[in-house]
Amino acid sequence: MADKENKKKVEAITSMDVDFAQWYTDVVKKAELIDYTSVKGCMVIKPAGYAIWELIQSQLDARFKATGVENVYLPMFIPESLLQKEKDHVEGFAPEVAWVTHGGLNPLQERLCVRPTSETLFCDFYKNDIQSYRDLPKVYNQWCSVVRWEKETRPFLRSREFLWQEGHTAHASAEDAEARTIQMLNVYADFCEEVLAMPVIKGRKTDKEKFAGAEATYTIEALMHDGKALQSGTSHNFGDGFAKAFGIQFTDKDNTLKYVHQTSWGMTTRLIGAIIMVHGDDNGLVLPPLVAPTQVMIIPIAQKKEGVLEKAEELKQRLGRVCRVKVDDSDKSPGWKFSEQEMRGIPLRVEIGPKDIEANKCIICRRDNGEKVEVSLNQLEATVEQLLVQVQKDMFERAKAHREANTSVAMNLEELEQILETRPGFVKAMWCGDQTCEDSIKEKYAATSRCMPFEQEQISDTCVCCGKPAKKMVYWGRAY
Amino acid sequence: MADKENKKKVEAITSMDVDFAQWYTDVVKKAELIDYTSVKGCMVIKPAGYAIWELIQSQLDARFKATGVENVYLPMFIPESLLQKEKDHVEGFAPEVAWVTHGGLNPLQERLCVRPTSETLFCDFYKNDIQSYRDLPKVYNQWCSVVRWEKETRPFLRSREFLWQEGHTAHASAEDAEARTIQMLNVYADFCEEVLAMPVIKGRKTDKEKFAGAEATYTIEALMHDGKALQSGTSHNFGDGFAKAFGIQFTDKDNTLKYVHQTSWGMTTRLIGAIIMVHGDDNGLVLPPLVAPTQVMIIPIAQKKEGVLEKAEELKQRLGRVCRVKVDDSDKSPGWKFSEQEMRGIPLRVEIGPKDIEANKCIICRRDNGEKVEVSLNQLEATVEQLLVQVQKDMFERAKAHREANTSVAMNLEELEQILETRPGFVKAMWCGDQTCEDSIKEKYAATSRCMPFEQEQISDTCVCCGKPAKKMVYWGRAY
Repeated sequence: MADKENKKKVEAITSMDVDFAQWYTDVVKKAELIDYTSVKGCMVIKPAGYAIWELIQSQLDARFKATGVENVYLPMFIPESLLQKEKDHVEGFAPEVAWVTHGGLNPLQERLCVRPTSETLFCDFYKNDIQSYRDLPKVYNQWCSVVRWEKETRPFLRSREFLWQEGHTAHASAEDAEARTIQMLNVYADFCEEVLAMPVIKGRKTDKEKFAGAEATYTIEALMHDGKALQSGTSHNFGDGFAKAFGIQFTDKDNTLKYVHQTSWGMTTRLIGAIIMVHGDDNGLVLPPLVAPTQVMIIPIAQKKEGVLEKAEELKQRLGRVCRVKVDDSDKSPGWKFSEQEMRGIPLRVEIGPKDIEANKCIICRRDNGEKVEVSLNQLEATVEQLLVQVQKDMFERAKAHREANTSVAMNLEELEQILETRPGFVKAMWCGDQTCEDSIKEKYAATSRCMPFEQEQISDTCVCCGKPAKKMVYWGRAY
Repeated sequence: MADKENKKKVEAITSMDVDFAQWYTDVVKKAELIDYTSVKGCMVIKPAGYAIWELIQSQLDARFKATGVENVYLPMFIPESLLQKEKDHVEGFAPEVAWVTHGGLNPLQERLCVRPTSETLFCDFYKNDIQSYRDLPKVYNQWCSVVRWEKETRPFLRSREFLWQEGHTAHASAEDAEARTIQMLNVYADFCEEVLAMPVIKGRKTDKEKFAGAEATYTIEALMHDGKALQSGTSHNFGDGFAKAFGIQFTDKDNTLKYVHQTSWGMTTRLIGAIIMVHGDDNGLVLPPLVAPTQVMIIPIAQKKEGVLEKAEELKQRLGRVCRVKVDDSDKSPGWKFSEQEMRGIPLRVEIGPKDIEANKCIICRRDNGEKVEVSLNQLEATVEQLLVQVQKDMFERAKAHREANTSVAMNLEELEQILETRPGFVKAMWCGDQTCEDSIKEKYAATSRCMPFEQEQISDTCVCCGKPAKKMVYWGRAY
């Protein structure tokens, strides 16, 4: 039984270079992050997956609170009439919501949709909660699940129900709203780079790609290992559009009635998909230490020999003061245990056997690059702490180098076509600002404008598509 | 404007003795715990309310994890056919679920209900996830929201959507399942008593009151200030009933196929209602320090005088190392600020003015009993730490004394009737074990059997209702 189980677990997964999509599916299953369910398009997030989400949540939430965010909880249902109040918004979401039509045994008087996002509910709430400039700003956030009836689904990346946070704020002025929109985008970018070890491009979405109902949408875009982009977080400035649709007014200091200015911003369990696709390799998941539920796995060698398990337990006690650590004392062979620890992406492995104990040392092996070091047990805690910091840093640098190696520049349509057909990754190219060119590139090459980055470069003077004078440099790419 | 707002906030609330239900509604609104919404029967949990829930969540979750619980997330939808697999369960829940019939623009092939509880989903998941005795036990929990289409709703106590945790476990033997059921009931009881300062009776529900599909339901019952009971947490042992309905089998050590034994256990945002009704008074909310988002409010006196606000800020910095503390430096009068701090239930108030500063002292006032002490600023941190412990302890003792003063004993039907008509609280009385007697008491006096307590007493030999030989002592009472 044990052997059969082990074999299943460490069975070779599809190589990323052979079939990246299949590799991804293999990893989410074999690292035991998710399971499929009887509910089409919905998934079970298993303990190994959910523990990553808990680490994302707690660290992101602390960053939110440091900027004055307060958490709340609003209903999961939206009455149809409420969803319809803002024209662009309802057009964007109505085709993909789930409708509740019966409560208990009775039909409802009005259909309710399961929230795909909660702008309309927050507006309905703010309408009564905000009276005076003294009530502003409101900087609220909620952690919840939302539902979007997607046709094609993939674990973490696109599912009919997913977990996220959605921040919704209201401000006295357009300037305050814009400042908060950018502030939260920066929180997202710093979180991705510092915690997920994932470099991102910050920029603004084109009008074609912006959120339904937003005046401006800002985004952080990351590059996956296969050269496709992943939108990893968005922050929207709504101006006073929703406020006018819902009648959210306040009495300002000058005693006149004004509309509030609003923002919203969200990040989702899709980030777990990003972690997999940025850092993973042919042996499975590779977790950045800051989001690794287990940071160090101690694997005893010849564990039946006297004193080995006791020593492993002693090291666990010592390391428990500086990191999240476990001992694998199951009756599997060390080889199987190594494969499992690798598949699960645990950043460091400590190997300890009778000879090591005799020599007062152990072996530490890094998951990210396979490097092994021999360490005196006297230096154990210090070395592990230092290695965890180093792994986190190296993973970021490696991902950044990968992105840079996979970012091209196109001066004209010929170059753009040649790059998109032969090289994965981002393409930087100039754009005239006309949606016709954007549509044309999307139609021809299945590539979309990812963003107009904050860090603009003057690559050329003319639009890559039509040759007219260029207004903006845009990152283009195929995306998840 | 400021005056109008303040007035609204500290306006006298209805006295508890005049109208307890109205007092409750006033408190949840004026302490800004909730707001009503356009979605009938659903509420907004505002920052002051949600912050209490976050403190409940983090402390309860830590206690779960200490017993080996792992968190997961399952879909919010249940296909109708899945809900129907266990007969008693579907009968219990089908009349009160919300049904999703359309996804996007298309009708669904099969209706989905929004989970009222997730036994059926966990069973469907465990069916594939459990193969061998090595996979057991599974001790999973999820934090989520659930929906029950209630007709009458009240904030926190009964709403169509509420937040909770639901633990679902699977075990190799009946003994293991029973042990886990009791273990989690004890976690709940300890949490209520130690963290919420709320004494509870632990016991078993009668068959009439048990959970739909359970073999045994255990409960903790608390007594509210008005003498009504509140079921505060339940833990169910399902035996192998669900396992047989869903086909959840494992290969045991002896190489035979066996059914697993399952449990589930849950606690909800209803606990916030319990905190309000156990500890609150005519000045508003009274929060136990361990679930108070702000534990100490510093209120400067004559704050426009030189050095006062600076001193208040300095004290906040110092106290920030030992507790959750804020300064109220708004432009309201100290009197208004006192009322607000009291309404919000903040356990301690520190008053500091020019004369105090000169004398190197401050006043600390306890929310729970109004006691004021003068404290040397040299002793500030130590005194606050000690007072927070004392308040937590005293609140528990006071609630326990209240429960004891409101627990009666009835030897026969006449006494039971007299007590239920004249005195609020629990009534202890013997029961023959026959549901007819239970039905009869419920029908005549609107009182239900709360539980058969673990701590049995032999009050008499005969059933309080029918006079036949008694089997169990039962706590009876009217309940929320």
